[in-house]
Amino acid sequence: MRKAASEMLDYNGCGMSVMEMSHRGSIYLEIINSAEESLRHLMNIPDNYRVLFLQGGASTQFAMVPINLMVKNRKADYVLTGMWSNKAFEEGKKFGDAVAVASSEDQNFSYIPDLNEGMFRKDADYVHITVNNTIFGTRFLKIPDVGDLTLVGDASSNILAEPINVSEFGLIYAGAQKNLGASGVTVVIVRDDLVGNCSKNVPTMLNYKTHVEGCSMYNTPPTYSIYICKLVFDHILSLGGVPAMYETNLKKSGILYDYLENSKMFSATAREDSRSIVNIPFVTKDKEIDKKFIKSAEKRGLVSLAGHRSIGGMRASMYNGMPVEGAKALVDFMHEFEKDNS
Amino acid sequence: MRKAASEMLDYNGCGMSVMEMSHRGSIYLEIINSAEESLRHLMNIPDNYRVLFLQGGASTQFAMVPINLMVKNRKADYVLTGMWSNKAFEEGKKFGDAVAVASSEDQNFSYIPDLNEGMFRKDADYVHITVNNTIFGTRFLKIPDVGDLTLVGDASSNILAEPINVSEFGLIYAGAQKNLGASGVTVVIVRDDLVGNCSKNVPTMLNYKTHVEGCSMYNTPPTYSIYICKLVFDHILSLGGVPAMYETNLKKSGILYDYLENSKMFSATAREDSRSIVNIPFVTKDKEIDKKFIKSAEKRGLVSLAGHRSIGGMRASMYNGMPVEGAKALVDFMHEFEKDNS
Repeated sequence: MRKAASEMLDYNGCGMSVMEMSHRGSIYLEIINSAEESLRHLMNIPDNYRVLFLQGGASTQFAMVPINLMVKNRKADYVLTGMWSNKAFEEGKKFGDAVAVASSEDQNFSYIPDLNEGMFRKDADYVHITVNNTIFGTRFLKIPDVGDLTLVGDASSNILAEPINVSEFGLIYAGAQKNLGASGVTVVIVRDDLVGNCSKNVPTMLNYKTHVEGCSMYNTPPTYSIYICKLVFDHILSLGGVPAMYETNLKKSGILYDYLENSKMFSATAREDSRSIVNIPFVTKDKEIDKKFIKSAEKRGLVSLAGHRSIGGMRASMYNGMPVEGAKALVDFMHEFEKDNS
Repeated sequence: MRKAASEMLDYNGCGMSVMEMSHRGSIYLEIINSAEESLRHLMNIPDNYRVLFLQGGASTQFAMVPINLMVKNRKADYVLTGMWSNKAFEEGKKFGDAVAVASSEDQNFSYIPDLNEGMFRKDADYVHITVNNTIFGTRFLKIPDVGDLTLVGDASSNILAEPINVSEFGLIYAGAQKNLGASGVTVVIVRDDLVGNCSKNVPTMLNYKTHVEGCSMYNTPPTYSIYICKLVFDHILSLGGVPAMYETNLKKSGILYDYLENSKMFSATAREDSRSIVNIPFVTKDKEIDKKFIKSAEKRGLVSLAGHRSIGGMRASMYNGMPVEGAKALVDFMHEFEKDNS
C-alpha cells in the first residue's frame, strides 16, 4: 500500500501514474506480464495453463464456467458446501444439466461431504467445488479424486493463502479482493484444452478464448487493480511465497481454534475435519451475547467480526493481509470478554 | 491523483485504505452513493433513470444491451460509424435481428451519416449509435430523432467532455478510462422501463435487473475504481461541471483544428460537420513523414500520438484530463516540425 501511494503520481520515474498510462504501452505491458509471471511462480502453474486477469468477479465465472465447459455432454456435477457453491450451481442450471451430487446443507454447511469418484457422472463435463467456503468457514482439506473428469475450483478466499496443486484442476478462478489485491479483477487459471470449445454465439466477453487470444487485453483491462495484484504477488514472493503464507495462516487460525476448543463461552461452528484456515465462524450459546461481543470488539478496533447474515454469530476472516498479532489481539479480547461475562 | 495518493493509507481518518475496507461498510456506501449523486448532478440525470457502476467495459455492454433490450420484437437498428459501433453491431447480431441502417464505411468512417426517423424500423427494439468515435474522430453533433424508438448511446469517449441530454436516450454506457476515472468500471445510465424485461435464463451478471436491485453491489464492485470516479466527479464539479469541460475542450480542439485548416503539411481526416472535440486524427500526405513526426514528438514528451492501426497517421486524444497548454504545446511542435520539414 505504501509502495502504491509512493508510485501514484509517478510510476518508476516515467512521469505518469499507472492509472494514466495506455494499457497497450510498453510500461503497462511489463506490469501485466510481470504480474502473470509472479503468479505462475507463486502457484507453480504448469505451462499448459493460461492465466487470465478478467473482470466481473466470481459471480461472472459462475456463468462463464458452464458456458465454456458444459459443452460436450452438457452435464455438470456440483458439490454444495455453502452460499457461493449454491449460487454457482443455480447459474450452472441455466446452461445445461447441472446436478448437485453432494451437499452439506443438512448440517448448515458446517462440513465438507465425503466424496468418491463413483459419485460423479461418468459423462459430466466437469465437477465444481468451492475450495474454501468464506461464510461457513470450511475447506476441502483433500481435493476430491474425480478420475478422468475435469475439476473446477472456486478458490476466491484461499488462493495464495495455502498451497493449491493447480494440476489437480482443469480450471481455478478467484476474485482478487481477499488475498490477491484490490477488487475489480478476477484471476482465472485454465488448462489449454478447455478453451475454445463453446459456441461462437455466446457473448464475446464471456468466452475464455477471447481473453486467451487477447492475453487479457481484448479490451481495456482493470489496469490499476492488476498493478496492485502485481505489488501483492511480489510482496508475497519476498516473504517466502505461499509456504510462508500457509505457515502464518496455520499459526493465526491455530491460535483462534485452540482458544475456541478450550473456551466455555465460544465454540467454532465448522466441523474439525473441514475447517478453513482463513475464515473462522464461531458462536456463543446466546444471540444477545453474540451481539454484545461484536459491539464491544468494535470499540476495541476489532472490526468486521459479525457473521454473514445467513449464519449469524461471529466470523474472523484472517486473510494473508492480517498479521499473527491480529489473531492474538482477537483471542486476548475474547478471553477478557469471556471472563467479564460469565 | 494527489488526493488519491494522500488518502491511500488512510481514507478520511478511518485508518484504512479504500482498497482494504468492506464494500458493505458504511464508509464505502457513502463513497459509492456520493459518486452516483455527483454524476447525477453533473449530467442532470432524470429520476426515472438508474445509474449503475459495472465491470467489463463497453465490450460487455455490446452484449448486455441486446440481451436486455432486444426482447420484444428481437430487432435492433445500428448506425455504423467506426470500429466500436461495428463491434457493437456484430455482437448484437448474436442475439436477434440486428441491422445496419446507415454507415459511413464508404469514406473510411470520416463522417456521421445523415439520419432521419424514416430510416429506422418502426418495430426496432432500439437504435444504437456511438456518440463519439474514438478512432475516426467523429461525433454526432446532433443526436438523431428516433421518434418513439429507444435510443442507445455508447458515450465512452465523450461522457462529461460535452453536454449530453440524457432524456434523449433510453440507455447510455461508457467505459470509465477516458473521462471518468480509472479503467475497470463502466457507467450505465438506463431508463427504468428498460430494466427487467429479459429472460431469467441469461447470465445473472449480464441482466441489468441484477445490478439495479443490488444498487451496483450484487457482488463486490470495483471499489477503488469507483472511488477514483468519485474524486474525478467532484473535481469536475469544483471546476464548473460539464459546461466548463466543454468550453475547455472546444478551446483545445479549436486550437488544433485551426492549425490543421491552415497547415500545408497536416490535415484533419474527419469531415468538418462531424468532428469530435476530444479525438482528432490527422495526417500528412506521406506515411514516412507521419512516422518521423510521431518519433520526433515523442522525443519532446508528446506521447501517444500514433493513430489507431486501422487508420494510421496521427491522433490527438484530448480528454478532460488534458489542459489547454497541452494543445498549445502540440501545435507549437507541429508548427516547428512543418517549418523544419518542408
